[in-house]
Amino acid sequence: MKTDNGTPAVQKPRAVVCLSGGMDSAVCAAIAAQEFDTYAVHFSYGQRTEQKELSSARAIAGKLGLHTLLPLRVDIFRLIGGSALTDESIAVPAGEPDAAATGSLIPVTYVPFRNAHFLAAAVSWAEVLGAKTVFIGAVEQDSSGYPDCRPAYYQAFRELVRTGTREGDIEIRTPLIHLRKHAIVRLGLELGAPFHVTWSCYSGDQIACGVCESCVLRLRAFAEAGVDDPIPYATNPR
Amino acid sequence: MKTDNGTPAVQKPRAVVCLSGGMDSAVCAAIAAQEFDTYAVHFSYGQRTEQKELSSARAIAGKLGLHTLLPLRVDIFRLIGGSALTDESIAVPAGEPDAAATGSLIPVTYVPFRNAHFLAAAVSWAEVLGAKTVFIGAVEQDSSGYPDCRPAYYQAFRELVRTGTREGDIEIRTPLIHLRKHAIVRLGLELGAPFHVTWSCYSGDQIACGVCESCVLRLRAFAEAGVDDPIPYATNPR
Repeated sequence: MKTDNGTPAVQKPRAVVCLSGGMDSAVCAAIAAQEFDTYAVHFSYGQRTEQKELSSARAIAGKLGLHTLLPLRVDIFRLIGGSALTDESIAVPAGEPDAAATGSLIPVTYVPFRNAHFLAAAVSWAEVLGAKTVFIGAVEQDSSGYPDCRPAYYQAFRELVRTGTREGDIEIRTPLIHLRKHAIVRLGLELGAPFHVTWSCYSGDQIACGVCESCVLRLRAFAEAGVDDPIPYATNPR
Repeated sequence: MKTDNGTPAVQKPRAVVCLSGGMDSAVCAAIAAQEFDTYAVHFSYGQRTEQKELSSARAIAGKLGLHTLLPLRVDIFRLIGGSALTDESIAVPAGEPDAAATGSLIPVTYVPFRNAHFLAAAVSWAEVLGAKTVFIGAVEQDSSGYPDCRPAYYQAFRELVRTGTREGDIEIRTPLIHLRKHAIVRLGLELGAPFHVTWSCYSGDQIACGVCESCVLRLRAFAEAGVDDPIPYATNPR
């Protein structure tokens, strides 16, 4: 590859990013794309809004100029159920995640051990690509309290990669994990993350509902960041 | 549930076992079935012998009286390649795993980070079933030198489960990991593992080839155990 003035271009190293299509993953992908030739992987796992999430992931990958988007289908969650996101018999709750309402610190939208499936795929692909970096936009605070969004979980996954891959040297980066959600909005604006094509809603069809826990967390983040969320909502309490 | 004499039967706790259809997984499932109401999960991931492996897993589950077999399809390995088991452009080598021949300690039949996908599925299912135990028949010695068959890898996975699941209390058991392969044969004979319906070959079509690294390791194990392997081989050097 040559630049316009004929000098050899510096080849960026490769990275794999998990791209859900949501606002956090868009910012995470924007961070990755600054430094890496970025390969995005997206997962359709029977979640209620899988068509919207896939089209959002495609749009984000296009807007950020990522190398490619690998769409994967993960059947298990549809087959085993156990989460409001993949099991029609469990309702998606409205409003903020509320431990008191469910008697548990972990909400019914938790998909059992989901992020292990996503990271396993990203690491497998990184091994084949020769990529030494995997990005995932997990967020601990201002999130739904999922166990697989906590720093200790990613620390354990790093050890799994160290012990269980060919070279043992693929790094798992979670650049958003300690950020408050409004700070992620501001960072995304700085980096040109295409928020207008992202999708966060757990239950909408063509338009985000505005009332599920994911919409509520997102709307609060934009409000606290002092900017308008560029996507339309069926109901916007703010 | 009642026993024949009318007293209530003791309900066995549930466990999930990864059942490939090979000899190690059959022995591992036989161990699990002694103590647990056992749910088996099998993976078709584009490996050359996937039809034979699935039918072997079904047969093993039937012979051992397991609760059910969940057949899962994992697309990623077919899509990304990188292993002789899933990529037709990479030949399956004949003979014993030979580090010197490839210049690497890890052979070309290594499927990148494969067991993380399998364990992730088993743990997700265990969470939904309320099972507190997951079995996998990984073997360190007398195996092909895959990084995801080493004890340190399973130790890391235990930490991942502790930090990344709802209750954090699902145990990962690897009862064969420190056994020599001939000892696994003897243990399987004691437990009634149905070796005659298992399938280990990496490359055969209807009959095991007898010359790939998996066949060679298996044939040596039966020879060292002093018993005949009950399955037929196209070529049996012993």
